[in-house]
Amino acid sequence: MKKTFATLVLALAAAASAQAQFKSPEDAIKYRQAAMRLTSSHFGRLAAMAQGKVPFDAKIAADNADVVVVLAKLPFPAFAEGTDLDAPSHAKPEVWKEAAKFKDLAEKLQTEVAKLPAAARSGDLAQLKVAVGNVGKSCKACHDTFKSD
Amino acid sequence: MKKTFATLVLALAAAASAQAQFKSPEDAIKYRQAAMRLTSSHFGRLAAMAQGKVPFDAKIAADNADVVVVLAKLPFPAFAEGTDLDAPSHAKPEVWKEAAKFKDLAEKLQTEVAKLPAAARSGDLAQLKVAVGNVGKSCKACHDTFKSD
Repeated sequence: MKKTFATLVLALAAAASAQAQFKSPEDAIKYRQAAMRLTSSHFGRLAAMAQGKVPFDAKIAADNADVVVVLAKLPFPAFAEGTDLDAPSHAKPEVWKEAAKFKDLAEKLQTEVAKLPAAARSGDLAQLKVAVGNVGKSCKACHDTFKSD
Repeated sequence: MKKTFATLVLALAAAASAQAQFKSPEDAIKYRQAAMRLTSSHFGRLAAMAQGKVPFDAKIAADNADVVVVLAKLPFPAFAEGTDLDAPSHAKPEVWKEAAKFKDLAEKLQTEVAKLPAAARSGDLAQLKVAVGNVGKSCKACHDTFKSD
């Protein structure tokens, strides 16, 4: 019991610390939506190349992949406890009810995203397709459970 | 005349290329607003330390400074020609009328922002204050001319 309580206290402290980065729950919601928008925009440029919609340019792909590596980390600290209210949000209550699963999927996303820069720099479209496909699956796996339409 | 026309064609091509990264003017406007929001959030964490509102932690400061270096570059390609319409925006017409001045101030911002990571890592609050102050002045210099309330 003591350990469980200590774990809870630590979790609450971490949540409070994450929330302290934001002025209010609304600020956290708008922040994470902004981070998702930018991530989606830059990942979209890689996906367009992977799908043959625009020509594969390794330099442009690498620049965007580097940006995605930074951006894809940003949204998650903004899903602190108590940030499910106060502004329109697509976050489902499961974000907080199934926090361990949410955290796990967020970490898996970072693992896949980390492979994008090397795939882009390889100049090999086949490698880019694999890396982009895996990131896309990782996005979808999380959205399927945790994002409302 | 030929040179002027060639310059104009090049400028239009660059603008078209920047715009091509976005689905629509509205997409570009929302993108740059998202980029400004994130930049402001992460720079705000450094400013809070510089102003003594929160304790100076060199590791947290360095992490945020590194993110600001990436984020502060993002908004500017989204001010392409033709993206002054279609969504509420604080961008004044001067962004396009005085494009050379806007570009110059955007570049000066990158120069000052590039000094943040070393200042953060120095562990010296005085150095952080100087670097944060200069970035703040750079933000304000641009906003004074190009951003409406």
